[in-house]
Amino acid sequence: MFELITKDNDARRGRLKLFHGTVETPVFMPVATRGAIRALPGSALDEIGFEIILANTYHLYIRPGVDVLDAAGGLHKFMNCKLPVLTDSGGFQVFSLSDLCKVREDGAEFRSHLDGSKHLFTPRSVLDVQRSIGSDIMMVLDQCVEYPADHSYAREACERTIRWAGEAIDYYRESFDRERQKIFAIVQGSTYPDLRKDCAKRLADLDFPGYAIGGLSVGEPKDLYNEMSEITTAELPEDKPRYMMGVGSPLEIIESVSHGIDMFDCVMPTRIARNGTLYTSQGRINIRNSQYEKDFTPLDPECDCYVCRNFSKSYLRHIFRVGEISALIYNTYHNLSYMKKLMLRVRSSIENGTFEELRREIHSYYGRP
Amino acid sequence: MFELITKDNDARRGRLKLFHGTVETPVFMPVATRGAIRALPGSALDEIGFEIILANTYHLYIRPGVDVLDAAGGLHKFMNCKLPVLTDSGGFQVFSLSDLCKVREDGAEFRSHLDGSKHLFTPRSVLDVQRSIGSDIMMVLDQCVEYPADHSYAREACERTIRWAGEAIDYYRESFDRERQKIFAIVQGSTYPDLRKDCAKRLADLDFPGYAIGGLSVGEPKDLYNEMSEITTAELPEDKPRYMMGVGSPLEIIESVSHGIDMFDCVMPTRIARNGTLYTSQGRINIRNSQYEKDFTPLDPECDCYVCRNFSKSYLRHIFRVGEISALIYNTYHNLSYMKKLMLRVRSSIENGTFEELRREIHSYYGRP
Repeated sequence: MFELITKDNDARRGRLKLFHGTVETPVFMPVATRGAIRALPGSALDEIGFEIILANTYHLYIRPGVDVLDAAGGLHKFMNCKLPVLTDSGGFQVFSLSDLCKVREDGAEFRSHLDGSKHLFTPRSVLDVQRSIGSDIMMVLDQCVEYPADHSYAREACERTIRWAGEAIDYYRESFDRERQKIFAIVQGSTYPDLRKDCAKRLADLDFPGYAIGGLSVGEPKDLYNEMSEITTAELPEDKPRYMMGVGSPLEIIESVSHGIDMFDCVMPTRIARNGTLYTSQGRINIRNSQYEKDFTPLDPECDCYVCRNFSKSYLRHIFRVGEISALIYNTYHNLSYMKKLMLRVRSSIENGTFEELRREIHSYYGRP
Repeated sequence: MFELITKDNDARRGRLKLFHGTVETPVFMPVATRGAIRALPGSALDEIGFEIILANTYHLYIRPGVDVLDAAGGLHKFMNCKLPVLTDSGGFQVFSLSDLCKVREDGAEFRSHLDGSKHLFTPRSVLDVQRSIGSDIMMVLDQCVEYPADHSYAREACERTIRWAGEAIDYYRESFDRERQKIFAIVQGSTYPDLRKDCAKRLADLDFPGYAIGGLSVGEPKDLYNEMSEITTAELPEDKPRYMMGVGSPLEIIESVSHGIDMFDCVMPTRIARNGTLYTSQGRINIRNSQYEKDFTPLDPECDCYVCRNFSKSYLRHIFRVGEISALIYNTYHNLSYMKKLMLRVRSSIENGTFEELRREIHSYYGRP
């Protein structure tokens, strides 16, 4: 499934063959939590050129629900998406969004954040939901811990995550179409190097098709993020894809690529876009700023996306200030275009052995680690 | 400027030659109040095939303001729109939106609904603003009255509207580029046939390039709307374009076309779209309805717009219920596509002498007048 094409130090240039298509890595996956990328028409996905998107098992399980997804013939048909889809297991959402989440040995009991109805996610049941979704990459149920967490609590969550991963890979092997759907394990361990290493090694022994790092970028300081990213990645099998969950900013991504991460997803580019914050080749700007009132140049002179080809900062500022929905559409479109182009540059810099140059450039505009 | 191509009874098929392009009539103009159509990316305008859009002098005067529009080189460049633009004068907004509007003999004094700052719109000043905007069609300042209004108050507003129109046409003739910008007068008169007729006749004497009917579809009963539409239109010069302001529903449009109206604008298709109400060839539907939960057919089997080609009712219902912005985008896209196709059918039915058949079809799905 995964081909490691070349490396530049630890940074990896790879290729992921999935049921719905081939994905070049490193890759950024835009987030379509509920089967739609927020504030972006579906046609823009193709225009920008994304190769894979992410959706969320918890949200889709709550709405539209498994029966609708089954009736539709899976998420791809439901949302009319031809790209590979990776789904998070919902573990993170159960622990962060739902009311009254109770961790049991066999799974996580929770109440829907919408109507309070009671549900149980088990290592097997989340895979069943992801079978209904038709995910190209399914994620195992894991137990996330908030930051900070004490060592014994983080250790307990790690042990449970590893045990659940074992149940999941067994169930996957006995009853899934392994050509159609892949499954990734998730390394937890909070900010403790011993837990991260132990978790990564023991999950590696289970021989999953791919590995994710969870529980980072949840509020810990930058240096701890980078330390954990580096330590954990070093323990993961070289021949399997590595996915850093919920990350991140251009800076976090460039750092984790340097540690050998291949895949990323994050709501940040779309979320900050809706707040008027835009990525450019010269760093972040906020379009509300009065300095753009009569600035008739594009958002980013080095960007050739639909928004930069058609609209000025002055216009984008105006429609944002008066509350036009098209401001959210254009800002989202541009930020995702930025992410796509950033990943293209990351790929070619690894191929050319110039990744460190690109990394320094990103540092100069997006801060140092 | 206006060519009357053919008629089917009183329904007219025409062509309007404007600075930024040719517009076939009858035409529906989507509303870009502040220089953007709500919830629609600019690219969709071309895709749907609109020929002219509407913007608003009051809103653009408040934000981004004349100095920004001047610096941008007008609204067309500012919003990157190649289509003709018609701008309402702001008269309606001054009377309905602003705080403390005071009608003076020389104009309307008002406070901005945004910051309370004090402004005066005169018959000349609104044309100056529309010169900065660069409107293909400018509207005169008029005095709108709410429904119901008593006869003497409506009469007074009519007299003022006619006097202001006289000032406007004089100013237009002495200092505007008449090839680049056209100007329309607005017939008022509330729901009084004598006032409507008198106003229409006296404005016709001023020999404007085009005429609008204002102050209708403001809450009066359907039969009064139709009566006023018919009476007023009958008094307007045959060789000038006729524009029914702020109208309307498929039913109102089909009725006013039957009276000889050529141009329409309305926020309704976009506003109800954001509430989940969608026009189809079989009438209105609301996409929130539970009957669409597992309905995997398109919104409208007779529609070939982007939304109908790509998404099912089930999916559109889902994204609307979970609050996705793309639901607003898709609903808006479809309703404007419906309006565009309706006007295409109106045009060809007049050409073919089958307008009454189409009118009966619309009655059967959208109610009778």
